[in-house]
Amino acid sequence: MTTKSKPAGRLISFEGSEGSGKSTQIARLAAHLQKIGREVVATREPGGTEIGEQIRNIIVHNSKGDEMCAETELLLFTAARAQLVREVIAPALQRGAVVLSDRFLDSSTVYQGIARNLAPGPVSAINQFAVGNVMPHLTLVLDVPTEVSLSRIRRRASDLPDRMERQNIEFYQKIREGYLLLAQQWPARVVVFDGTQSLEALDKQIWSEVQIRLA
Amino acid sequence: MTTKSKPAGRLISFEGSEGSGKSTQIARLAAHLQKIGREVVATREPGGTEIGEQIRNIIVHNSKGDEMCAETELLLFTAARAQLVREVIAPALQRGAVVLSDRFLDSSTVYQGIARNLAPGPVSAINQFAVGNVMPHLTLVLDVPTEVSLSRIRRRASDLPDRMERQNIEFYQKIREGYLLLAQQWPARVVVFDGTQSLEALDKQIWSEVQIRLA
Repeated sequence: MTTKSKPAGRLISFEGSEGSGKSTQIARLAAHLQKIGREVVATREPGGTEIGEQIRNIIVHNSKGDEMCAETELLLFTAARAQLVREVIAPALQRGAVVLSDRFLDSSTVYQGIARNLAPGPVSAINQFAVGNVMPHLTLVLDVPTEVSLSRIRRRASDLPDRMERQNIEFYQKIREGYLLLAQQWPARVVVFDGTQSLEALDKQIWSEVQIRLA
Repeated sequence: MTTKSKPAGRLISFEGSEGSGKSTQIARLAAHLQKIGREVVATREPGGTEIGEQIRNIIVHNSKGDEMCAETELLLFTAARAQLVREVIAPALQRGAVVLSDRFLDSSTVYQGIARNLAPGPVSAINQFAVGNVMPHLTLVLDVPTEVSLSRIRRRASDLPDRMERQNIEFYQKIREGYLLLAQQWPARVVVFDGTQSLEALDKQIWSEVQIRLA
């Protein structure tokens, strides 16, 4: 009689701007994985731990003004990430689970680094310090044109002031370009999907890619 | 007629373990400085800004358990520091004020780096990222033997459990040695004072040193 060996733990991160459809696709992928008997741990950033949710509150509470400097924002996101890695992700990978993370270190590279103009060297060093040796095995970028992303966000929060929206167009363009750049830099890890196709078509593409990577 | 020129801003940080007498000496030094007509801005870490005080709450709230990892602790302290530098310290220095900070970046080097065993390279890089080009002109370390420090802490909080106290002896020894090491490494900036002498004698020594540095 042979003992069934424990499957290898896998960390899959989902990236893309707000309104790119990450949470819907995470739920669908989780269902596929559970159907084939894998343990799935879904988590989100910033947050995912008690300490991380406290940090999230500070970030969200201060996100509407200009009071929080970009350096503090980066350090808070990475503080939450460091805790998430050690408290949730690393133990889950150890057990052989598949961890689906709504955002991970690439969000800091793109949002705080590229969009908020922090120098890439320190951003990368701080990211690395926070995650230690826990890197995503696969990163799925859901790419949608800036206008689509903005119109989806507007549907969620119809009372966004005009000034904020105008700022956002340039900001979200930088975010989008940042992710496409990352995919060019790390082609073995970062895969871009067209987020404008139907949920079903996107779901099918993602599940097919993940099956190849899990094999 | 000549216009009186604005005095040069100065950042003076106070360091030392808990119970070393920092806050008493900061109050005394502030009084001396105000008497000679200097603007004094006294601040503390973590905290000193609205965002920093929110971060302080997370740290203090979680300080009694082992839940918070050392990496997160470092990133939270430096997040609060980055905000403090940009919101309070840099503008005050610009105005020509003397800023007295109860702890600054050396606390991270010693507490999170040396005492919690984080690698010195990343700790130094993250410290530097957080403070930018704002470094203390003078750092005063109030040095007291570990036993004195612990007995002063005990007087403040008589209900410390035994286990915590025993952990603390080794911890506070590392802190003390860490500060003495820093003073050796940066003799032009970091000056050690004997914190066991009378408040008056210490006050006189500090004021004398600061007058030389302000000149």
